Amino acid sequence: MIEPGGRIGILGGGQLGRMLAIAAAELGFTCHIYCPEENAPATDVAATSTCAAYEDADALARFADSVDVVTYEFENVPAETARILAEHAPVRPGVVALATAQDRIVEKNFLASHDIPTAPFADIPDEATLVEAVARIGTPSILKTRRFGYDGKGQARIDTPADAIAAYEAIGRAPAILEGFVHFEREISVIVARGRNGATAAYDPVENIHKHHILDQSLAPARISEALADKARAIASHIVTDLDYVGVMGVEMFVLGTDEGGPRLLVNEIAPRVHNSGHWTQDACAISQFEQHIRAICGWPLGSATRHSDAVMTNLIGEDAHDWARLAGQSDTALHLYGKAEARKGRKMGHFTRLYPLGHAPKTLR
Amino acid sequence: MIEPGGRIGILGGGQLGRMLAIAAAELGFTCHIYCPEENAPATDVAATSTCAAYEDADALARFADSVDVVTYEFENVPAETARILAEHAPVRPGVVALATAQDRIVEKNFLASHDIPTAPFADIPDEATLVEAVARIGTPSILKTRRFGYDGKGQARIDTPADAIAAYEAIGRAPAILEGFVHFEREISVIVARGRNGATAAYDPVENIHKHHILDQSLAPARISEALADKARAIASHIVTDLDYVGVMGVEMFVLGTDEGGPRLLVNEIAPRVHNSGHWTQDACAISQFEQHIRAICGWPLGSATRHSDAVMTNLIGEDAHDWARLAGQSDTALHLYGKAEARKGRKMGHFTRLYPLGHAPKTLR
Repeated sequence: MIEPGGRIGILGGGQLGRMLAIAAAELGFTCHIYCPEENAPATDVAATSTCAAYEDADALARFADSVDVVTYEFENVPAETARILAEHAPVRPGVVALATAQDRIVEKNFLASHDIPTAPFADIPDEATLVEAVARIGTPSILKTRRFGYDGKGQARIDTPADAIAAYEAIGRAPAILEGFVHFEREISVIVARGRNGATAAYDPVENIHKHHILDQSLAPARISEALADKARAIASHIVTDLDYVGVMGVEMFVLGTDEGGPRLLVNEIAPRVHNSGHWTQDACAISQFEQHIRAICGWPLGSATRHSDAVMTNLIGEDAHDWARLAGQSDTALHLYGKAEARKGRKMGHFTRLYPLGHAPKTLR
Repeated sequence: MIEPGGRIGILGGGQLGRMLAIAAAELGFTCHIYCPEENAPATDVAATSTCAAYEDADALARFADSVDVVTYEFENVPAETARILAEHAPVRPGVVALATAQDRIVEKNFLASHDIPTAPFADIPDEATLVEAVARIGTPSILKTRRFGYDGKGQARIDTPADAIAAYEAIGRAPAILEGFVHFEREISVIVARGRNGATAAYDPVENIHKHHILDQSLAPARISEALADKARAIASHIVTDLDYVGVMGVEMFVLGTDEGGPRLLVNEIAPRVHNSGHWTQDACAISQFEQHIRAICGWPLGSATRHSDAVMTNLIGEDAHDWARLAGQSDTALHLYGKAEARKGRKMGHFTRLYPLGHAPKTLR
């Protein structure tokens, strides 16, 4: 166990790093932020930060030498970066988790080999394979780059077999995955943590509403049966256990309705880090996803994932943030702003959470 | 209104400054900490800090010039320090609040002149006055220094008139106040906030248990009638309004039982800052006392002071902090550690809060 007073290295200076650093401080740790951007949000809440490239081997080594454990706020940490860091300090969650989550094919193969249901998929190394896979999986289907996709970037929809080549061009002819289109009833996610002792703790599944491929709102709990919620938590715990994972993971799932042979769940994606759809835990749980992650990577026992309130979390994207004064005037709104100066389009600027007594979350979202 | 991205100056680097800085970050502000100690707890969570004496006029001026508003985490800010700061930036809560709370006689006179009930008291400038006052107020009574007392320091009990001179010696023959001893049923406090627009918001009164004159536990809500709780909130709101106060204040009160002509309330002390007995609001309210203070001093509307859960907050004093690992293993315990290296006797090292559904707080404390 890393004792209070220990120092945590956080790779990445965005809002997730910022909220991790705050949670770490609440447990008596100090943080050292490493990121290439000047004045990154996380650096505002840490006494120490290093501004250097992720390829700067010397700076990485010095950073890792200065801390007791390294974690990260984004899954696209270059493999070489992780390798250098791991020579100097424990990196948690580890390189296996990164390698798995960075590549959609590796991720889906991992899930399939552990009997976790997903949409049908195919590895697309080239054009010929794509044409054949579209014929097999059918349309509509989605072509996604294997690596570096997020918030709908690096994706193209294939509505008829004739669209296949155009879609491949649209994603830059990069190594890809073809996924069968899923007619889902709703999208949910489970924030799950696993400690160094192997214990897991899964928060209640939340329901996620996207706008322009970016998370807009999360409703806690999701409007699904208790049995399906149990199943979702079990799947998430299964994944972190099979990966021998340490830390918090976000597991995105589709809920298929009776028309699609459901109710049943398909896993869409895993994120080896704290997750936007878990921000509600800051306000609706005694132990947030951020604290849970810090506990896990420091070898502490996990806290309870119980919620004391129902909640709706809403993201503030780009110019939404200019609405801060109105939101500040709503006395029951817990507002969280990330300290970003410029409200660029599509940029996550903050979020707000409204709490409701257990069982009294609104039945509909905006 | 100070907009997100603005900078808040915090005088004092202890745990209250630390928790204020964290709350400020959550609203998108940055903080600049000013304190004379190296490696003070608050400096861990702020990107900027100045380590200089409270008497260093140049450093104070530079500090105040660098921020949009100055606040403080302790009431014993020297008057000259406050005056220098106020020439360079707004200081909130202001110099009147400081002057009132720094001197027990000024404070009690203020309360008395605004019809707020207190224990009987007398100004003790010298020995002769003390002897006369003891005869008038009776024994037991408590002799306290007018200034710089906290956690029971600077106090001596007078059980019989013959003790008076020894008590005066014990407090160093400093200018003092004599207060009649109050046979109270319980001690409560109200955390109240007042915004720049004059609106007030009072949290539910909590019941405080002291050990060795230091706060040990706060139970939210206090075990008093709803009518008395309303009265306590009204008194607290009355005080901040009459002081034209901006920010959060802790108001300590005694509850007198039927034997003492009650149930009724006497105000014991006011603290012109966030208060240890309000730490439970971090975990049991959507808007904590720390965020409320930041909102107030930045000219924002106040948030709701409603609690979503009942709570028991317990301080970790000195070696109590060595118990962190056991507490970390209690999954329902929200642990807060202040990042202090050395667990000196009587030093506030952290606290923990346990939440209960509304109406289900334990009936007895430890």
